[in-house]
Amino acid sequence: MPGKTDFSDFNCSLARALGAVGDWWTLLILRQAFFGTRRFSDFQRSLGIARNILATRLDALTRNGVLTRDGTTRRPLYALTAKGEELLPAMVALMQWGDKWESGNNPPVLLGDDGGRPLQKIALSSQDGTPVTAANIRFAPGPGANAATRQYFKAARPKGTTSSTG
Amino acid sequence: MPGKTDFSDFNCSLARALGAVGDWWTLLILRQAFFGTRRFSDFQRSLGIARNILATRLDALTRNGVLTRDGTTRRPLYALTAKGEELLPAMVALMQWGDKWESGNNPPVLLGDDGGRPLQKIALSSQDGTPVTAANIRFAPGPGANAATRQYFKAARPKGTTSSTG
Repeated sequence: MPGKTDFSDFNCSLARALGAVGDWWTLLILRQAFFGTRRFSDFQRSLGIARNILATRLDALTRNGVLTRDGTTRRPLYALTAKGEELLPAMVALMQWGDKWESGNNPPVLLGDDGGRPLQKIALSSQDGTPVTAANIRFAPGPGANAATRQYFKAARPKGTTSSTG
Repeated sequence: MPGKTDFSDFNCSLARALGAVGDWWTLLILRQAFFGTRRFSDFQRSLGIARNILATRLDALTRNGVLTRDGTTRRPLYALTAKGEELLPAMVALMQWGDKWESGNNPPVLLGDDGGRPLQKIALSSQDGTPVTAANIRFAPGPGANAATRQYFKAARPKGTTSSTG
């Protein structure tokens, strides 16, 4: 990460998620874990990642409860925890965006269920099913907002935000 | 990014997405853009980010077509393009994961639509509506797969992958 900013200190679940997941390599390591990769040497070979970078990232993911490390010390086996498995929608959302905007709608990898049915493209909606996009999304301070966040939404009243009291 | 790996060269839309979006700061800059922030000084103040880091990231986002830069040279105005706006599901997915796993279900920021209805939690499903999780997701080489990717899925036949011919 640039500088030494600790994103987990931010009053923002996106920043905290980024702090917990670590860096770009981490998401590709997790991609491999979703493919079923469990051994250090298999992560290393499939990603072409330097051993020291891989070791640091696997340690951080284990420490953050995203992966478990079992097996022998010499040949540990890594596996996704429930916390790790729940990163799937974020990874799929980024992958679908990349399929369209960086791979010219020509996906290198197809996603589906175990019956061979393709995955639907992720679409946001609110609780009555209204589609939500950048045009109609709204932000407001939540129960975990600190004073600075509440003040930000109150003072800036930026486009796309609503009052917490309204 | 660690080393000098160019993730956009990977035969993977997730890696390419990560290459295009840049780094963690970039997602927080985009968060601000979704809030409606448009000026350099406003990004700088709200994120507490170093000016040189912010300038580099805004340049990259503009070059990659995620933001546009209008207004005067001295006081440019940044705005999301369609490509940038379509990053919303990925950001929301990461934020929802952070709400649960890093903010103890105590969200600093609430998301909703312009009628005040809360956003639904993102859930993956296949085209007939079957819920898709880590347990039943499957991967297969797509039309954009290169020889190495096809070989990977053929040779490794990892858990969670299906043959492209099956």
